[in-house]
Amino acid sequence: MLAIAGDSASGKSTVAAGLVNTLGPHRCLSISTDDYHRFDRLERSLNGMTPLHPDCNHLDILGQHLQLLATGQSVLKPVYDHASGRLLRPVVVDPADYIIVEGLLPLHTNLCRACFDLAVYLDPDDNVRRDWKTQRDCASRGYTPDQVLTELADRESDAQQFVLPQRAFADLVVRFAPIEQRNDPPDTPLSATLLLRPNIPQPDLTSVLRPEITATMHMGLANDHDGRPVDSLHVHGYVDPEESARAEKLLWRALTEDRLEMTDALGAIAGGHSTPLAVTQMMLLFHLLKATR
Amino acid sequence: MLAIAGDSASGKSTVAAGLVNTLGPHRCLSISTDDYHRFDRLERSLNGMTPLHPDCNHLDILGQHLQLLATGQSVLKPVYDHASGRLLRPVVVDPADYIIVEGLLPLHTNLCRACFDLAVYLDPDDNVRRDWKTQRDCASRGYTPDQVLTELADRESDAQQFVLPQRAFADLVVRFAPIEQRNDPPDTPLSATLLLRPNIPQPDLTSVLRPEITATMHMGLANDHDGRPVDSLHVHGYVDPEESARAEKLLWRALTEDRLEMTDALGAIAGGHSTPLAVTQMMLLFHLLKATR
Repeated sequence: MLAIAGDSASGKSTVAAGLVNTLGPHRCLSISTDDYHRFDRLERSLNGMTPLHPDCNHLDILGQHLQLLATGQSVLKPVYDHASGRLLRPVVVDPADYIIVEGLLPLHTNLCRACFDLAVYLDPDDNVRRDWKTQRDCASRGYTPDQVLTELADRESDAQQFVLPQRAFADLVVRFAPIEQRNDPPDTPLSATLLLRPNIPQPDLTSVLRPEITATMHMGLANDHDGRPVDSLHVHGYVDPEESARAEKLLWRALTEDRLEMTDALGAIAGGHSTPLAVTQMMLLFHLLKATR
Repeated sequence: MLAIAGDSASGKSTVAAGLVNTLGPHRCLSISTDDYHRFDRLERSLNGMTPLHPDCNHLDILGQHLQLLATGQSVLKPVYDHASGRLLRPVVVDPADYIIVEGLLPLHTNLCRACFDLAVYLDPDDNVRRDWKTQRDCASRGYTPDQVLTELADRESDAQQFVLPQRAFADLVVRFAPIEQRNDPPDTPLSATLLLRPNIPQPDLTSVLRPEITATMHMGLANDHDGRPVDSLHVHGYVDPEESARAEKLLWRALTEDRLEMTDALGAIAGGHSTPLAVTQMMLLFHLLKATR
């Protein structure tokens, strides 16, 4: 059971989709914790709460359902409809080999955290996330750009207080961002930094990170939020796609030992491919495969 | 945890309401298993299923929820709206001292049955139930009398196959009916026969059933569905109300030892009072009080 936590439009469902399509949809259950919203959009506008507040979600029921799914039982999952902002009739969901739970607060409670074998926190650069959120909410959730910016401002306090602290409970922290030191043109693909925390046994990448792929990715040391040193994997978005593709293949072989077929779903983003996203998904797949070995 | 099972309009929620109002609503959780319908009214009209069919209900989820409630956990309960025939957003319900579960199929599965401390099956005379169903469905569920009769005919096969067999799992079986041997006028209150099965220790009524109340109620022997003899309590509806009221008081004292206040809710029916209903509720309260002693 994998948790993908992060603020609104941080890339959670994009990461999840690549995992599901690579593992095989029939072997996966993918859940959005947005379905566990306690209030619909109208009620939130009346009570002034944001969905980022724990009290605005049935987190106790989420924990109960994760526990039931983890022990092989089906649950009657609530349904939140993003298009209308309304809560609909619930649906039965059955457990699967891989259960992927993405949302704003999957790591907020002790009970939920205890259910996960693996947790990733997505922490993209603020400007990047603002762009992603504007694009998505205007295209598929019926918002105007101004409404999105107002909502982002309204949510800032709850995001800092409740969403961000979950970063501390993740095994991997992924930050998508342009590289500041370079003056790449604006349409350059994003890079990413992956913090690989020692909470869980991380893969040994020394053999795969050979000189011929260091242009695409290389290891470094970073300071974690508490000041402690932590391994970081830097993946560069600006590299020539063919060179990146070779590096991805080498990494895939090293991480999965070809126990799974490498698919186009890895790194798939709207209208293209992102090597940093593919690498993030491969690192998660390494741990998921290990958990079911 | 008490199950009240029976066919449509057999008096389940009327029995439940009197129990809740006597025990105190704050100490009770009352659940209708209709909320666990898998399909809404439109879907049922398209797939030709009746809500009396087990496959038309989330009985596995019902069992899971009863188990969770029995162990002190809250659940996110689905909601079926009888007025519109639609499934709505679910609601959180918390466990309580007394959990009353009434519906068409609460005793169908092993898991559900295992959760109950006590089960009653309501088995009114067919003509009585037809009248009750017509009155209720036309008044509060938007049906016409013809629709109700058609529905009764459509449901007959599933009722025989799935609802009626639950009678075998009940500790008490209650049959409301006019007394055939008497030619009472049509507005005479109904009588009732309560089978008191030996599955559970039934109260000793010998001290209370003294000659001065035998006009209202008396014990007898009946043949159960499998031919075995079973105690039956006969409660007469035609008796003078003042005499019945005295009998009810004596029975109440014997059954509850005045550990609970006798309320007007016992025996309450639309526009009046039914002694056979009050006696049924008292017998159930005897067992409920014993279970929490």
